[in-house]
Amino acid sequence: MNFASDNTAAIAPEILQGIARASDGFALGYGNDDLTQKVARRIGDLFGREAAVFFVSTGTAANALSLAQVTPPWGAVLCHAESHIVTDECGAPEFFGDGLKLIGLDGEGGRLKPEAVSAAIEKYSGHRPHQVNAASLSLTQATEAGTVYRIEEVAALAAAAHAHGLKVHMDGSRIANALVGLNASPAQATWEAGIDVLSFGATKGGALAAEAVVFFDPKIADTMHERRKRGGHLLSKHRFLAAQFDAYLADDCWLRLARHANGLAQKLGAGLAAAGFPPVWPVEANLVFVILPKRIETKLKAAGASFYARNSDSLPAGRTIGHDEVLLRLVTSFATRPDEVDRFVDMVRGG
Amino acid sequence: MNFASDNTAAIAPEILQGIARASDGFALGYGNDDLTQKVARRIGDLFGREAAVFFVSTGTAANALSLAQVTPPWGAVLCHAESHIVTDECGAPEFFGDGLKLIGLDGEGGRLKPEAVSAAIEKYSGHRPHQVNAASLSLTQATEAGTVYRIEEVAALAAAAHAHGLKVHMDGSRIANALVGLNASPAQATWEAGIDVLSFGATKGGALAAEAVVFFDPKIADTMHERRKRGGHLLSKHRFLAAQFDAYLADDCWLRLARHANGLAQKLGAGLAAAGFPPVWPVEANLVFVILPKRIETKLKAAGASFYARNSDSLPAGRTIGHDEVLLRLVTSFATRPDEVDRFVDMVRGG
Amino acid sequence: MNFASDNTAAIAPEILQGIARASDGFALGYGNDDLTQKVARRIGDLFGREAAVFFVSTGTAANALSLAQVTPPWGAVLCHAESHIVTDECGAPEFFGDGLKLIGLDGEGGRLKPEAVSAAIEKYSGHRPHQVNAASLSLTQATEAGTVYRIEEVAALAAAAHAHGLKVHMDGSRIANALVGLNASPAQATWEAGIDVLSFGATKGGALAAEAVVFFDPKIADTMHERRKRGGHLLSKHRFLAAQFDAYLADDCWLRLARHANGLAQKLGAGLAAAGFPPVWPVEANLVFVILPKRIETKLKAAGASFYARNSDSLPAGRTIGHDEVLLRLVTSFATRPDEVDRFVDMVRGG
Amino acid sequence: MNFASDNTAAIAPEILQGIARASDGFALGYGNDDLTQKVARRIGDLFGREAAVFFVSTGTAANALSLAQVTPPWGAVLCHAESHIVTDECGAPEFFGDGLKLIGLDGEGGRLKPEAVSAAIEKYSGHRPHQVNAASLSLTQATEAGTVYRIEEVAALAAAAHAHGLKVHMDGSRIANALVGLNASPAQATWEAGIDVLSFGATKGGALAAEAVVFFDPKIADTMHERRKRGGHLLSKHRFLAAQFDAYLADDCWLRLARHANGLAQKLGAGLAAAGFPPVWPVEANLVFVILPKRIETKLKAAGASFYARNSDSLPAGRTIGHDEVLLRLVTSFATRPDEVDRFVDMVRGG
Repeated sequence: MNFASDNTAAIAPEILQGIARASDGFALGYGNDDLTQKVARRIGDLFGREAAVFFVSTGTAANALSLAQVTPPWGAVLCHAESHIVTDECGAPEFFGDGLKLIGLDGEGGRLKPEAVSAAIEKYSGHRPHQVNAASLSLTQATEAGTVYRIEEVAALAAAAHAHGLKVHMDGSRIANALVGLNASPAQATWEAGIDVLSFGATKGGALAAEAVVFFDPKIADTMHERRKRGGHLLSKHRFLAAQFDAYLADDCWLRLARHANGLAQKLGAGLAAAGFPPVWPVEANLVFVILPKRIETKLKAAGASFYARNSDSLPAGRTIGHDEVLLRLVTSFATRPDEVDRFVDMVRGG
Repeated sequence: MNFASDNTAAIAPEILQGIARASDGFALGYGNDDLTQKVARRIGDLFGREAAVFFVSTGTAANALSLAQVTPPWGAVLCHAESHIVTDECGAPEFFGDGLKLIGLDGEGGRLKPEAVSAAIEKYSGHRPHQVNAASLSLTQATEAGTVYRIEEVAALAAAAHAHGLKVHMDGSRIANALVGLNASPAQATWEAGIDVLSFGATKGGALAAEAVVFFDPKIADTMHERRKRGGHLLSKHRFLAAQFDAYLADDCWLRLARHANGLAQKLGAGLAAAGFPPVWPVEANLVFVILPKRIETKLKAAGASFYARNSDSLPAGRTIGHDEVLLRLVTSFATRPDEVDRFVDMVRGG
Repeated sequence: MNFASDNTAAIAPEILQGIARASDGFALGYGNDDLTQKVARRIGDLFGREAAVFFVSTGTAANALSLAQVTPPWGAVLCHAESHIVTDECGAPEFFGDGLKLIGLDGEGGRLKPEAVSAAIEKYSGHRPHQVNAASLSLTQATEAGTVYRIEEVAALAAAAHAHGLKVHMDGSRIANALVGLNASPAQATWEAGIDVLSFGATKGGALAAEAVVFFDPKIADTMHERRKRGGHLLSKHRFLAAQFDAYLADDCWLRLARHANGLAQKLGAGLAAAGFPPVWPVEANLVFVILPKRIETKLKAAGASFYARNSDSLPAGRTIGHDEVLLRLVTSFATRPDEVDRFVDMVRGG
Repeated sequence: MNFASDNTAAIAPEILQGIARASDGFALGYGNDDLTQKVARRIGDLFGREAAVFFVSTGTAANALSLAQVTPPWGAVLCHAESHIVTDECGAPEFFGDGLKLIGLDGEGGRLKPEAVSAAIEKYSGHRPHQVNAASLSLTQATEAGTVYRIEEVAALAAAAHAHGLKVHMDGSRIANALVGLNASPAQATWEAGIDVLSFGATKGGALAAEAVVFFDPKIADTMHERRKRGGHLLSKHRFLAAQFDAYLADDCWLRLARHANGLAQKLGAGLAAAGFPPVWPVEANLVFVILPKRIETKLKAAGASFYARNSDSLPAGRTIGHDEVLLRLVTSFATRPDEVDRFVDMVRGG
């Protein structure tokens, strides 16, 4: 019953095989190998346009490098107050961005609203050079709350940003989970809706450690090679980053794995609801948030269940966490088994 | 005939199996898993003392994080003018060190001399706060020239540094190759000789992407967790970094692989010498530098040989590269085959 | 009728004379002159204890250098959401602090409450190394809203911070104005109440450009010399920074000038209140905030009055700015004349 | 007999009067005042073209901000190994440039040669993204050795840089002294010879603290406002920076003061030569370098003479400093008196 994180899962067998397959003979280092070139083109094809693709090994690196590329040191990144870049990256965006500022905005269920973004842009425009000015917007898809922006919501947010010259970044560490729910193409979900640069995650989806930064306008990526290198993020045996994506994308493996994870999240959410504990937010990806009595939490832990308690300032209006309650974040992955879900729900139902 | 770099090799089979073995079930992320703890202890045991061990995925990250940890932004790192940190890391040490300065010193065959270090320390001491002051010394072992510092040379250099309060870093991306030649224990080659922090490389030795920063005094590592995280270098599925080291160190795999590489470098060097082209520097690790007529270089390339030409300001006194000559760097690895060496030497001999 | 800012005033005559007096003969540069030493000691005496004093020429430099000295790059500075360091320094604290994070907290009238600080400390503690942790607290005295913390309020805030190991910084660009209102000694208002480092402003009080960073515990200032120098803030003809403070502090000049400014702010506030427009916050220093009909604002501007309109999220409960109203910030200084205040109030009263 | 530095002098009376004159009434802060606008235009006129002018209070700030503006963090600045930016700014260029690298080149008498610059450009070009690439060239005029580049030398150096896309910076902390010797117009000595950005110093020439960064192509200055502000270098009472330049430039005051300083340096150099101690380098500005027996140095100090001993690796071929000798740097300024020079020379002659 491991629901702690999708990164507690191992490597998906398809990807492990891909790594093994690539471990054959010699190949140029630092991304000059054929496989890297091939997979970069493949990602361009997947999104239906020319793109500049940079592989790195962590999501934090992907996000921080992306944001630094589209935000000057005296610029601000607008983002959700509970987004990963704000709460869980130990200042990596500020470090890579030489002191740029993250402006955390509120929004229910981890989602930003265009009005809030527009208001923040207005607040962080002008009064130069005294005030940092908004330079970019970062959206997380799926969000840290397990919700998914509709395509038209992304488009409205991006339009609000573009209207004032901001670039739009998407933290897609769970982009596969979002796509499965959206029933949209990668292109529709990203650049067609206004995304300029995507952190395309594979690690949470099943890779060992592989993320791709995808610039939909290669021109804005012109100094990314140097930025990645001096960040220590240019792997020498680079083919193995590409190999992970190669296997991940082959035969829709990535969507199949995400569909599995999402399906079990749905099952988990439905089970909890039936047990009297409806998820706090709609279950649209592979995360389920639920408020449980602490008593049940204790029982679950005693039974070996693994998960994290969270706080949130973006609960639905009216929802609060009682003194003897706790907000749990439950994450499913390609490796989660239905029987674990059943067992977990049974224990909750048992009270 | 791939002699371009030891990072053009694939993953050593033992390490690939180690990764596969670790890809089983769930494990806590971010280094909180059992395997990471176990392998960190194992590395401490290998060096015969308590140590603070941090795994990362690139040598540049290992070096830059190490140096930033022991050098203030207004400090200088003394190092060889042709060391990797100076010539091949795109300013990563300066970036992670918030503007620290690298002072490249001359030295034949990639090796620093204690007198040069002492003179530099004298030059970069005092005149504060106008001048950056020497704060650390970085040695590369084996050096970029394929030479190896004797234990007593390391000790003399470290003593010169410690006498003025500098910390001593060793870039050990090829530490295994050095140890094989030195016939010394890991402890003797590092902290017993005065090394304070080691970039312990495994990638060039056969790993996919795994390096360990080893602080022999855990106290100087106190903020390394945050530094690594905000550098984007804390892998979520961290067990797979540990797994690579686990396999690499098991049954002396690392030394066996290095011995293979070094042996073929010796063979290559001896063959070239016999053909009338003695290596420029003694072949003490897995690199061979040789000056060849451009005519032969052309022929080798036409035959599919892969290698890089280099420049160097640290040639032995009197050695020069003629107008129609070229200095080649030839690197062997665990994956190099004897017949490749034979074929290469035959072609050189053929003229 | 210039109420735009206290930095629109010229140099106070006493200070200009001080500069002229110091411009005599040769003196060592970079702070090694006798006058600098003397004035630094004098500031220590003023505060009744040994202190490490560093002169710089701007308040932004004083604040950013102070905060960088007490906050690691992976640390957070707690401060008011509308403090100068957040809204008007273009990311200087983040720049000097190599990416540190400012956490802006709410608080009516520009003032923080201990409970809010304690809650923020709890939120920004632990979860390391993923989350930046609170490392310092910055208070502005007098605040940007023209209010003044009571001594016991400062003490309670500092105690909340110290309880968790945070250092406490005071942005005292208007410390003289605060002291005049508090009727407290410099020692009581700062280190006796728990302040660790003070940006001691003189520019707004009447200097050309002079601020002193005062560390009440010299040990935490150990690398400040280098930090100031590489920030470009070590003036070569340093004696002229000291000379400004020398004249500013002589014969209580600084308090006399501040008393003048505060007195006219009181007069202005009382006049506006009598005219039916009571100041938004109590007038405790040299700033008056008032909500006026836009119609009157237009008339004032037409008559040559100079001031800035502001927004604020820290209005008293219930106070709002109507659609046809505007919040004005009116600042007095040593150079403000009573007749300007009278004329301004008359115009407002005229409606 | 103060020959320690031109920054040990006081404020030139003309400039002090200028400050006093500007200290009258209210003026907008942060450079929005009329005087700043006027003086910026005046500087443009002085150079005979449109220019973007930014005032700051230290030479280190002027240099570091300039270099950061024309060099990316992964770029290198080529400069003399003994230039002020390398030896005396405590890493300010690296700090403001987010880790850029200074490449110190050799050159006799503090002067770079075009061939050395071209060779360095070739060395620091390509091999991207592993190696930092040369992005700018910084020349000091007059040099730290007291020599002055001829116009055609500047032009040749700038041409070598421009041929490969580098920008050219001039550290003109002593530009007035250079111009006096060159008998050239400011335009001829700078942008007409290929300078892109100038640190135009006034402090060493007689100001309290005033330097102007002059971009001859305003387009490359587009983010300089923010860079200066977040560096803490935007003075609030900004008119007083402008006032210093206003007085300094009026009626050729700056050139008159420099001519005085240069004349006394000539006199000093000639006197020392006649005494048997010819200056090490030609005396072309306001610095004289001379090798003296330590015995005489001791005597001079005992008599109250003030100066610094230096080391240099750029001595003329064949010149060395004997065991019982010392290399003295003697600096004259607007405040130096002829009788001090006479007395100094007499003492040297006395042996």
